[in-house]
Amino acid sequence: VTESFPPGRVVVGASGAPYTVVVGPGIVGGLPEELARTLPGRRVALISDSHVAPLHAERIADSCRAADIDVALLTFEAGEASKTRKTWSILTDQMLEAGLGRDSCVVAVGGGVTTDLAGFVAATYMRGVPTVLVPTSYLAMVDASVGGKTGVDVRAGKNLVGAFHAPELVLADTELLATLPHSERGQGLVEAYKHGAILDEEHFQRLKEGRSELLSADPVVAARAILESVALKAAVVARDEFEGGYRQILNFGHTLGHTIEAASEYEVGHGAAVALGMLGEAVLGERLGVTSPGTSETLEAALRPLIGTSGLSIDVDRALRYLSVDKKARSGDARFVLLERVGHVSPGDGWTHAVPRSLVEEVLSEVMG
Amino acid sequence: VTESFPPGRVVVGASGAPYTVVVGPGIVGGLPEELARTLPGRRVALISDSHVAPLHAERIADSCRAADIDVALLTFEAGEASKTRKTWSILTDQMLEAGLGRDSCVVAVGGGVTTDLAGFVAATYMRGVPTVLVPTSYLAMVDASVGGKTGVDVRAGKNLVGAFHAPELVLADTELLATLPHSERGQGLVEAYKHGAILDEEHFQRLKEGRSELLSADPVVAARAILESVALKAAVVARDEFEGGYRQILNFGHTLGHTIEAASEYEVGHGAAVALGMLGEAVLGERLGVTSPGTSETLEAALRPLIGTSGLSIDVDRALRYLSVDKKARSGDARFVLLERVGHVSPGDGWTHAVPRSLVEEVLSEVMG
Repeated sequence: VTESFPPGRVVVGASGAPYTVVVGPGIVGGLPEELARTLPGRRVALISDSHVAPLHAERIADSCRAADIDVALLTFEAGEASKTRKTWSILTDQMLEAGLGRDSCVVAVGGGVTTDLAGFVAATYMRGVPTVLVPTSYLAMVDASVGGKTGVDVRAGKNLVGAFHAPELVLADTELLATLPHSERGQGLVEAYKHGAILDEEHFQRLKEGRSELLSADPVVAARAILESVALKAAVVARDEFEGGYRQILNFGHTLGHTIEAASEYEVGHGAAVALGMLGEAVLGERLGVTSPGTSETLEAALRPLIGTSGLSIDVDRALRYLSVDKKARSGDARFVLLERVGHVSPGDGWTHAVPRSLVEEVLSEVMG
Repeated sequence: VTESFPPGRVVVGASGAPYTVVVGPGIVGGLPEELARTLPGRRVALISDSHVAPLHAERIADSCRAADIDVALLTFEAGEASKTRKTWSILTDQMLEAGLGRDSCVVAVGGGVTTDLAGFVAATYMRGVPTVLVPTSYLAMVDASVGGKTGVDVRAGKNLVGAFHAPELVLADTELLATLPHSERGQGLVEAYKHGAILDEEHFQRLKEGRSELLSADPVVAARAILESVALKAAVVARDEFEGGYRQILNFGHTLGHTIEAASEYEVGHGAAVALGMLGEAVLGERLGVTSPGTSETLEAALRPLIGTSGLSIDVDRALRYLSVDKKARSGDARFVLLERVGHVSPGDGWTHAVPRSLVEEVLSEVMG
């Protein structure tokens, strides 16, 4: 039984209607009522993966049906390898076969793969139907819940095909974290540390202090941490919804991180790759005199305990080739978001800095060494 | 040599930045300058089909290159059969292979298939890059140029997968109409007549009076007609960008039209199908007492000369099955936009009327008889 904890709410401003991220233990029980209130008359495609469906999605579907909501439960094989245009096509066709019209909505129950993939299905189904997200991982609660990014991976890289499509509602039930594999807990928390690193040193410190409760998925400690982190991200997205300028600061750690992830052929998990990317980008900043000396050590002390680091290796030449098709590439230059120190990002030139390729190569080798 | 005609402009309001539709003979010569002005530094994917590429797109690509714009010309096989997720994937992959980053833009040169398909590529490339449309058909100039609809067809029906993605700029050069096959001229003008039918009886009359000049693609008469028609559509879209309410009036003729088109397995062209749909929906309205008697005859007299009607036949039972997956379906009901008379749409219940299936069946048989 969970200690009493009132659900917290963060309102995310978007160019369409603002939406709410609700965070708290046990709140998914309110989904049928929320669906009836926010989307009356909607028929639901509940999308989940083969791992999360038996753990959570089937029960959630049943609770909706008990409230007279018409639910088609659609599942796909768990794993990043499913986050493709092919799975997107199959899910879309299953919705069409189920006769779901443009008055339907998509409820995504799962981790970041599910929310990104189901979100892209919703974004493109009959030119867009509403989405409700029920994230079940730290990564999805902290990151995918805010910003409206949806998409799939292609051979050339992750998330290169997608759309911005803000959800109607996000229910982050921290009791669902209990079933999250231990290996994904630390990796998922990396994005929360990133929000602290770019915006709020105190959030960064509190995450460090609560590490053992967070890794054991304590639903109350998790709810407090997620609420803080979601509020930080929401403030950034409210200022720049479509990633033209300020929002780029959220890419801290991701330029190198995506490169490491892709070059390892996804052997290195997303969280671990972003953690390594944050370390590497802190080192880049220190070498360029932008980031305070010692910042990379502070990040390393906080992040290494979250991720497995033994045996990680990548081909640096290969990684550098991935860099050039990164979405943040402007006319072929490699540009990076850099910190001034923990809690503060450098304004740079439009929030990024050009970094010589030779320095990127040198630092990539060191971080992966 | 074309009679001197100053380009006309219609500004289309959208939730993002408003964009301009420029209409006039010869204006595509200004494309390189417009690209440099509105999208400085952008690399361009110029997308066209195998029919239009040698007629126009190659020359347009050359004119951009002569102005130091980096252009990747990507073509696909002409025809509605190419408007698929597969072609969308191939074009996306070709852009990735060309190393185009998120600072690239898509220029679509062609008819409605090209603008819808290339628009969907742009909408989903790295979560959205800008689009410039250079429509080469009446249909694309009058219809696809306004509203930001993009999409592809799937087995279950046309345009069932897509996104709203407004262009940055539309250049409707009426000299390009000279290469439009004669069979597509009349069909493409049907959408202009539709704008008259729902909104402006005078526009409807002027289209009738100018029919022979329009069918011979007179670039000045065409420019005047297209400007009027685009302005009518833009006024509707400005009032309701995302098709929640008022914008549905643009679907007049399309509920039956799409059904006829799909049931004929696209043997019946889009314009002919919409013309038949307009006739059918006028008959529906007359039978229900919503539409003034004689309206369907007025439409028939205007539209029959535009379309070939001999030998058109469809399976009515099959057509009725398509009706239920139409995007306008609300909870399985068949709903229609109906006229009060030419130039005036009936407000109905949220701009549509529920129509008994038996009446739809009866009228479909008559119209196709």
